[in-house]
Amino acid sequence: MTKAGFGAFRAERDVSTPGAVLMRRLDELAEFSSEKNVLTRLYLSPEYKAAALQVMAWMSEAGMEPMIDAVGNVVGRYAGRAPNLPVLLLGSHIDTVRNAGKYDGNLGVLAAIGAVAELNRAGERLPFAIEVIAFGNEEGVRFPVALTGSRTIAGTLDPADLDAEDTDGVSVREALQHFGCNPFDIPALPRRKGDALGYVEIHIEQGPVLEAEGLPVGVVTAINGASRFDVEIKGHAGHAGTVPMGLRKDALAAAAEMMLAVERRGAAKSDLVATVGRIEAQPGAVNVIPDKARFTIDIRAPVDADRMSAIGDIEREFRAIAARRGVAVNMKRTYEEAAAICEPWLVEQLEEAIARAGIRALRLPSGAGHDGLAISALCPIGMLFVRCKGGISHNPAEAITVEDADVALRVTLDFLRKFRPAEADD
Amino acid sequence: MTKAGFGAFRAERDVSTPGAVLMRRLDELAEFSSEKNVLTRLYLSPEYKAAALQVMAWMSEAGMEPMIDAVGNVVGRYAGRAPNLPVLLLGSHIDTVRNAGKYDGNLGVLAAIGAVAELNRAGERLPFAIEVIAFGNEEGVRFPVALTGSRTIAGTLDPADLDAEDTDGVSVREALQHFGCNPFDIPALPRRKGDALGYVEIHIEQGPVLEAEGLPVGVVTAINGASRFDVEIKGHAGHAGTVPMGLRKDALAAAAEMMLAVERRGAAKSDLVATVGRIEAQPGAVNVIPDKARFTIDIRAPVDADRMSAIGDIEREFRAIAARRGVAVNMKRTYEEAAAICEPWLVEQLEEAIARAGIRALRLPSGAGHDGLAISALCPIGMLFVRCKGGISHNPAEAITVEDADVALRVTLDFLRKFRPAEADD
Repeated sequence: MTKAGFGAFRAERDVSTPGAVLMRRLDELAEFSSEKNVLTRLYLSPEYKAAALQVMAWMSEAGMEPMIDAVGNVVGRYAGRAPNLPVLLLGSHIDTVRNAGKYDGNLGVLAAIGAVAELNRAGERLPFAIEVIAFGNEEGVRFPVALTGSRTIAGTLDPADLDAEDTDGVSVREALQHFGCNPFDIPALPRRKGDALGYVEIHIEQGPVLEAEGLPVGVVTAINGASRFDVEIKGHAGHAGTVPMGLRKDALAAAAEMMLAVERRGAAKSDLVATVGRIEAQPGAVNVIPDKARFTIDIRAPVDADRMSAIGDIEREFRAIAARRGVAVNMKRTYEEAAAICEPWLVEQLEEAIARAGIRALRLPSGAGHDGLAISALCPIGMLFVRCKGGISHNPAEAITVEDADVALRVTLDFLRKFRPAEADD
Repeated sequence: MTKAGFGAFRAERDVSTPGAVLMRRLDELAEFSSEKNVLTRLYLSPEYKAAALQVMAWMSEAGMEPMIDAVGNVVGRYAGRAPNLPVLLLGSHIDTVRNAGKYDGNLGVLAAIGAVAELNRAGERLPFAIEVIAFGNEEGVRFPVALTGSRTIAGTLDPADLDAEDTDGVSVREALQHFGCNPFDIPALPRRKGDALGYVEIHIEQGPVLEAEGLPVGVVTAINGASRFDVEIKGHAGHAGTVPMGLRKDALAAAAEMMLAVERRGAAKSDLVATVGRIEAQPGAVNVIPDKARFTIDIRAPVDADRMSAIGDIEREFRAIAARRGVAVNMKRTYEEAAAICEPWLVEQLEEAIARAGIRALRLPSGAGHDGLAISALCPIGMLFVRCKGGISHNPAEAITVEDADVALRVTLDFLRKFRPAEADD
């Protein structure tokens, strides 16, 4: 931990707009790190604790009652006009990857607090309560499990996840105890279905679409479902100089043709993406025709049926390529996650708020996973994306502008003020 | 060295034909190895010495006068009808790669001795002398230089090659002295141009063409020229889930398209071969669009102009692919060796000998390098290829049949008996 003190006054920062305050706080929160000049804040680490305490302080300042729950989430409640009103959940996560950017997760938490602070400043109480949650372990970096905080709230946490260990052999359960949480209270944390009106997450896009469209924010239609595969091709090795082209069974040439098929099928449907990230040829010598090639496929789409259809087409094309070239191909699924659809009425209300801000409301899918993915098992979800520079994320170069932060806050606040639960649409 | 004694009688071997004797000797020679049950016989090693002595013994038996020259070649002279006649060179090499097959190099040396043995048995002397040379260091495995023996004979040895060191820091010069050679005598070894009528090398094909054509032997048109390249592509990294296909600059997808262009251009011209043997994508994660890809190209042809034309086309196509995809491509040449043309009148005389054996005479290029490549700087060269199982070489699975060994010997003997030097064609 490198932070000297919490919330020290910074004369040099602009506090002239809510967006400027939000940016200043994001900078401040980024200092809670295990490394100097680099942001690394793993779940349940000392710096995670410090960040949680700082978030609680800002929640208090915004008129909320904050607490840390039994799984290390920070939860702040902003009461509605009356006691026991249904609750709208807002939030994102405060754990980070190693060598992270300042905005992934943290933006959603601090923007939600910032919006509530504006309501509080104006003395506004809404016809529903708001809970802002700063989730723990969205990233799954310290432990080989992810979305721990949001799955707990959604009631979908696998109890075995608490036995997952970090590289030092410390389990999630032990880390929670060391952190000051009582993991025995975790079973009491899931919200009952129907208690939450919905969940809205503000997040940087982590992609280049809003930048390319010249838009500060956009509304998410779905968190893409994803499938991953390991593909192995077996051909026939040979001397690069002595085997005529027509007698070859080159595993790598077959892989090249398959990789282009993946790319082509990915591009054939809007919102579908398909990527080959890893490739290897064996024996891997400049003068030997490869007898083996291995590559990975990552394929995502907001609509599961579109993903499945693409996978089927790719499999068929691989078989045809392999048959034509006389090589064997094996495609092994290594990961599978269904898409989480954003609730249409939440999408519409977010769109309306964007439009009221004078901005064209662009719908786009989320290629990356988020806490909303877990929360979708509990209640309707919606997401507001904020433009990020160059589409870069999980990297210190992650950046947003103060103007876009301001727009995001303005849209969120307006959305909250006009929010009508599902029933109101009937 | 695992061989107990030289040329011990083996009751179980077939000695009924010259081919059977040749196969028995190839088995025997393969026992001179640094490892048990594996053939590894590096230049100037104790097992190389033992193999050289065995070769000398077989040369003596065939009526030749054998000696080991100053660079470790074994040279055996079979005198012609009169003293001081011009000489026809025959040969190949007796050093091997690690975990080698029995036939690469050794076949050419022992087949040449076998053919001379037949002449000697019949008491035939020809109107020219024959020298069989068992070259040293064709493979270039122990030292980072190759073709040392044949380059010495051709007069093209770079004196700096004698300073090349093995992994123990022993130079070629020191290894020669330790072996019993006097490296100071090397400058006297090159033959004068015009003294040698030609050079003929018998070698396993190390490729699948003869097997595919159902032919025991074939005549080589040229030892292919070769160029090698390292290709590097720089694109733009991105999240596999968040960057739409149309906004990507995927270095690996560009590489896949380029690899197929290499394969297509290789197949566009008969006798041309082009191979991508190694590939790497960075950062190399399943969920990250690669920003960098590197691969190798090995391209060979019997005609240098064909190779150059293909390289030009490939470079142009790479630039077009890179421009279209918005990535950068860099192509660095790492190796360049011109083709060695086999002398047309030698090719014809070998063809005639094959035809006289009742076999269709197939012309084919040699994709691999051979001692003939070096000797082509001294005199006309010709090569006879022998079918090898599955085209496999540099591997213990390297195999030829006794029938094919017999055909190779018969064709060689017939070729020698009918040999007319270039002048005779005028």
